[in-house]
Amino acid sequence: MSARDPELAPTFAAIVGEDAVATSPSELLRHGSDESYHQPALPDIVVYPHSTDEVVRVVAECRRLSLPIVPFGAGTSLEGHVTAVLGGISLDMTRMNRIVEVRIPDLDVTVEPGVTRLQLDAALRPEGVFFPVDPGADSTVGGMISTGASGTTTVRYGTMRENVVSLTVVLADGAVVRTRSRARKSSAGYDLTQLFVGAEGTLGVITEAVLRLHPTPEAMTAAVCSFPSVRRAVECVIATIQMGIGVARAELLDEVQMGAVIRRHQLAYAEAPTLFFELHGSRSAVEEQEDELRSLAETFGARDFVRATDERERRRLWEARHRAYEAALAMRPGARGLLTDVCVPLSRLAECVEATRHDIDASGLTAPIVGHAGDGNFHVILVIDPNRPDELDRAKHLSERLVRRAIEMDGTSTGEHGVGIGKRSFLELEHGPAAVELMRSIKRSFDPDNRFNPGKILPDQASADPAYTRAG
Amino acid sequence: MSARDPELAPTFAAIVGEDAVATSPSELLRHGSDESYHQPALPDIVVYPHSTDEVVRVVAECRRLSLPIVPFGAGTSLEGHVTAVLGGISLDMTRMNRIVEVRIPDLDVTVEPGVTRLQLDAALRPEGVFFPVDPGADSTVGGMISTGASGTTTVRYGTMRENVVSLTVVLADGAVVRTRSRARKSSAGYDLTQLFVGAEGTLGVITEAVLRLHPTPEAMTAAVCSFPSVRRAVECVIATIQMGIGVARAELLDEVQMGAVIRRHQLAYAEAPTLFFELHGSRSAVEEQEDELRSLAETFGARDFVRATDERERRRLWEARHRAYEAALAMRPGARGLLTDVCVPLSRLAECVEATRHDIDASGLTAPIVGHAGDGNFHVILVIDPNRPDELDRAKHLSERLVRRAIEMDGTSTGEHGVGIGKRSFLELEHGPAAVELMRSIKRSFDPDNRFNPGKILPDQASADPAYTRAG
Repeated sequence: MSARDPELAPTFAAIVGEDAVATSPSELLRHGSDESYHQPALPDIVVYPHSTDEVVRVVAECRRLSLPIVPFGAGTSLEGHVTAVLGGISLDMTRMNRIVEVRIPDLDVTVEPGVTRLQLDAALRPEGVFFPVDPGADSTVGGMISTGASGTTTVRYGTMRENVVSLTVVLADGAVVRTRSRARKSSAGYDLTQLFVGAEGTLGVITEAVLRLHPTPEAMTAAVCSFPSVRRAVECVIATIQMGIGVARAELLDEVQMGAVIRRHQLAYAEAPTLFFELHGSRSAVEEQEDELRSLAETFGARDFVRATDERERRRLWEARHRAYEAALAMRPGARGLLTDVCVPLSRLAECVEATRHDIDASGLTAPIVGHAGDGNFHVILVIDPNRPDELDRAKHLSERLVRRAIEMDGTSTGEHGVGIGKRSFLELEHGPAAVELMRSIKRSFDPDNRFNPGKILPDQASADPAYTRAG
Repeated sequence: MSARDPELAPTFAAIVGEDAVATSPSELLRHGSDESYHQPALPDIVVYPHSTDEVVRVVAECRRLSLPIVPFGAGTSLEGHVTAVLGGISLDMTRMNRIVEVRIPDLDVTVEPGVTRLQLDAALRPEGVFFPVDPGADSTVGGMISTGASGTTTVRYGTMRENVVSLTVVLADGAVVRTRSRARKSSAGYDLTQLFVGAEGTLGVITEAVLRLHPTPEAMTAAVCSFPSVRRAVECVIATIQMGIGVARAELLDEVQMGAVIRRHQLAYAEAPTLFFELHGSRSAVEEQEDELRSLAETFGARDFVRATDERERRRLWEARHRAYEAALAMRPGARGLLTDVCVPLSRLAECVEATRHDIDASGLTAPIVGHAGDGNFHVILVIDPNRPDELDRAKHLSERLVRRAIEMDGTSTGEHGVGIGKRSFLELEHGPAAVELMRSIKRSFDPDNRFNPGKILPDQASADPAYTRAG
């Protein structure tokens, strides 16, 4: 069946129902795009399955018709993950959005992949538990699993990797596998779960997930303070972690980012590198730790140490951090952001941020820096004028230099956004040819016809050929 | 080259040196055995490599000679992992035992795989950091990675899975891959690291590892109390975790195990289900949490709540736990232990332990129960007379019933010991045929000639044929 064949819609409607397929230009455009600077690439059709069984039948139909399948969640990815570079179907999972079961004694929850972060949060809050992983967007659980997402709480609660217990996945041959039991730990065979985490939909379609939950802490307090330099701020974070002060968040905004926020929102902060902390625990423990944190920060030259205990005040204090991206874009009206994402060992973070700031300033671009300092992960928000192609080129060049520097420091080309299209060319530099060949062999063995999200993660071959040559 | 060919020793001596190959009967027996009830199976030769480069050359030689390779660490595994069921070479990694670099700011350490748990602990202690994973034996890091080991601190610090950052591995074709950078988190491609964790040496030979470290807590306190029933003790553990009391250890000994320990070591405990707790944190935080723990435990009927703060007293308090295995064996002089290992969701733990106790009592066997209650993981120490084959049969039967019950409860056949030979037959029951076929496809794609530790993890095919049929 050729692209946009008029038979496509009835074929899939027979499986999912007429109101669960879409071919309108606006739907195709929305599903062929994400929130990045990457060019959209439109699918031939959008299909909204309602169950694992429907996904199995859709996959079978795609096998018969030789159609690529691009799983789609909220479309909030940042490296072109959901673009349908070879056409085919966009498999929109958002109608599979049931919270199947919350189990408080086991501290886990079974969800369908279309459940969004905020939907899950609202359902869990009254139960006294929470799911900690918080990427900026209101992404779906399936998308968060598929990019190996993280966010501001990783320093304490880990990334998606540490918070996914088990997955149900539809494979290329239509088999449905459950990767693992619900036991807290297991040594029974190869770890299939972690293979699908961060696989960006290239190995199968996730149709159900069991996630780990955490008890809501009795108390949460926030603290903000500024430092004479990024280096001193990072040294403070390192010391904090080593002293065992259990920070739940440790976010760094550089002086440019702070300037943007201050001007945009008239906030009373210093225009200097600033750390935003959050502490979770019992009331007395967080108070004690905040005292320790304050005196520790002051030994690293911290000034204007502000703290907040009650919910409203805490949110207000964190406002600058929450509005960082918006404030960055407001630096140049009409601009859009190109968001980088590297992660380095903590001991190299200050050096990496400083060299990046030097690069930015030399390039003449506008670009605040914001980072999950506790993890060694940071983003540069390159604020570029979409009508000036030279700016996009310069931004890409700068981003590439940054990635190479991070890899040289034994870091990674992407801490949390994933590879998608945007980071494929760095995969071999980061992992070496033998490791990339191993990844390729996994892809071939899981998805021999390159049906699932072709053109993502793996460089070259995968993007060139719809079905690349099988080995042996 | 046929088995025990006289040319084998000089062939490998040319790579590793004459004092690094062994063919004496005692060396072959030691390397063909572990600490379990499984029959030894002897390798043709033992080879002790000194470097990654030597491992590459040994693997190349084995490829040329069509010899299986069984990686070997301390030989402390419990499911026949290191038995050379098809002969070949036992690759003893214990001479690769350097602690390469401790990096305090990054809280990680690079080690060779032959480093043992206690060796690592001794090296880290003066640095104010520790590696938390503590299986009972003084196993090697390579062995702990390969079985996905855990221990008493998993409830707080996780298993090997959460504490391995990156691995260097020699593959079947001789390629050397590093699975990942040292960044704290990464979304750059498929997770190769976790594939090798728990792979029991069947996918490649680990020659270096980066492990996560944790700061030594300011204070550690211990608490012990007994309960009217296993159920009440487990309910107490569940409530403790839900209240966010950050227990670092929560170990359960049932009344039979307590009886054994009390009689063996003249300890002043009650012969009742007993929990051993440990709390880590600041001095004031652990004191506060211990108070909370005590009043919580008492609502579940706990009696004789004893606490200990200083190091010596804490160790004394935990003595009963540390000596559980020894005390169990002492129940029947001359006996040996068959150790089971299942893990279930916490909500099913009490039911699973109770049903198991009922089974044991009905069988007439002697068998204390000891568990990592915070993880839902427990062991039955079946104390059997090696001269009575019917006891081994009954013990195996009981163990099989236990595994089936755990799987029915959405648990796993092995929480931490691994599959080896002993749990292969349950793999399909636990994961389903499609998931096992996926594991098989991973094995084929990583190790097409079934060179690495053949006959382990995967059922049937792998054990029957030295090189099983390739798909396609």
